[in-house]
Amino acid sequence: MAETIEGHIYKTFDLDLKELKAKLRFQGELVESAIQNAVKALTERRSEIAEKVIKDDDIVNLKEVEIDEFCLKLLALRQPAARDLRFITTAIKINYDLERIGDMAVNICERVLELNQEPQLKPYIDLPKMTDIAQNMVKEALDAFLNEDIKLALKVTRDDEKVDQFLDQIFRELLTFMRQDPGTITRAVRVLFLAKYLERMADHAVDIAELVLFMMEGKIIRHLKPVQEK
Amino acid sequence: MAETIEGHIYKTFDLDLKELKAKLRFQGELVESAIQNAVKALTERRSEIAEKVIKDDDIVNLKEVEIDEFCLKLLALRQPAARDLRFITTAIKINYDLERIGDMAVNICERVLELNQEPQLKPYIDLPKMTDIAQNMVKEALDAFLNEDIKLALKVTRDDEKVDQFLDQIFRELLTFMRQDPGTITRAVRVLFLAKYLERMADHAVDIAELVLFMMEGKIIRHLKPVQEK
Repeated sequence: MAETIEGHIYKTFDLDLKELKAKLRFQGELVESAIQNAVKALTERRSEIAEKVIKDDDIVNLKEVEIDEFCLKLLALRQPAARDLRFITTAIKINYDLERIGDMAVNICERVLELNQEPQLKPYIDLPKMTDIAQNMVKEALDAFLNEDIKLALKVTRDDEKVDQFLDQIFRELLTFMRQDPGTITRAVRVLFLAKYLERMADHAVDIAELVLFMMEGKIIRHLKPVQEK
Repeated sequence: MAETIEGHIYKTFDLDLKELKAKLRFQGELVESAIQNAVKALTERRSEIAEKVIKDDDIVNLKEVEIDEFCLKLLALRQPAARDLRFITTAIKINYDLERIGDMAVNICERVLELNQEPQLKPYIDLPKMTDIAQNMVKEALDAFLNEDIKLALKVTRDDEKVDQFLDQIFRELLTFMRQDPGTITRAVRVLFLAKYLERMADHAVDIAELVLFMMEGKIIRHLKPVQEK
């Protein structure tokens, strides 16, 4: 009998973890779509998309609390040991990161609403590419956690360089604009801030990837590489 | 006898919590001093201070891991219920925030090292004031957590507006510089980024304060106010 009960308890906890993963995956999808739509609102100059992202952030916020409460419940009721405990406390931090990435999509939308009221500074070529990379990093960082995939987590930490390169490139290009025509300065700075938000999102993805690596290998990756940000 | 043992266990856990608080307070002090020194390195044009802040961030990183492990140990060994459980999981998130604030001090120092190689753009009047407010917000947010002080947490959420005002003011002033003399654009943008980091630190302080409010009142403050960032 004891075995059956234990088996039952084990299975239930296993189901709990599955549910936690499903919740995080859904939250990840919400946040990824917020990133894409925020930049789409700029490139297609459709402010209504930006407004929707800002409004939908409420859902991300509520989901964050739901996931947090779910983790607390697992900790309180299941009292997991070692590995599972670390998985859940890592989930708590990743959940916190995802919500912040959602906030940054909102921050981008706020800049977009301002930018869309003025003539377009230039065609956006690099920003959508940078967005795709940042969004993919968020996706892969979360996948690395959900599938406990060290290789994928390492890939995310490497991809950060691409985002930094795009930021550098955008920065230099905008400087040229500003120098040639001071009338573009305000807009250029707004676009620059927007690119910085994308870079911060990528940084959060790296943070998540590093949490995964630490959870799985006990290695403190973030202390091995110098902090780099432009 | 049972009572004595229970009393003993309770006391031990009480000591554990005290130790956790002491660790977080120490980490808070490290981070606060990093903030002050990062900006001092700019205003006094002393790059060696910036280099020291960058180097000392290793200590903040190690402390973060130490605190995280300590929290995990408490969760695993003490299996705290309800209130204590929430306190510890909140500590895990605050610890994560403090480490990031330390990273931002490093980011500021990186900009300072660049800025110190060029002629000073202008005397810095607002930046040190903004720094004092941001640093104080970090201190008070952490104090609010350690002393479970709702009033103080609310004060921190209100102080964020002051930081935003400083950022606006600095932004407008720098725009004037850039428009009048395009030769200042690169430096002005660097100073602007630096001010943005201070604002982000203040945002982290608000995040911490909101965690405290949520822990104590179950209220989701962050969802009541719109995300604001410039």
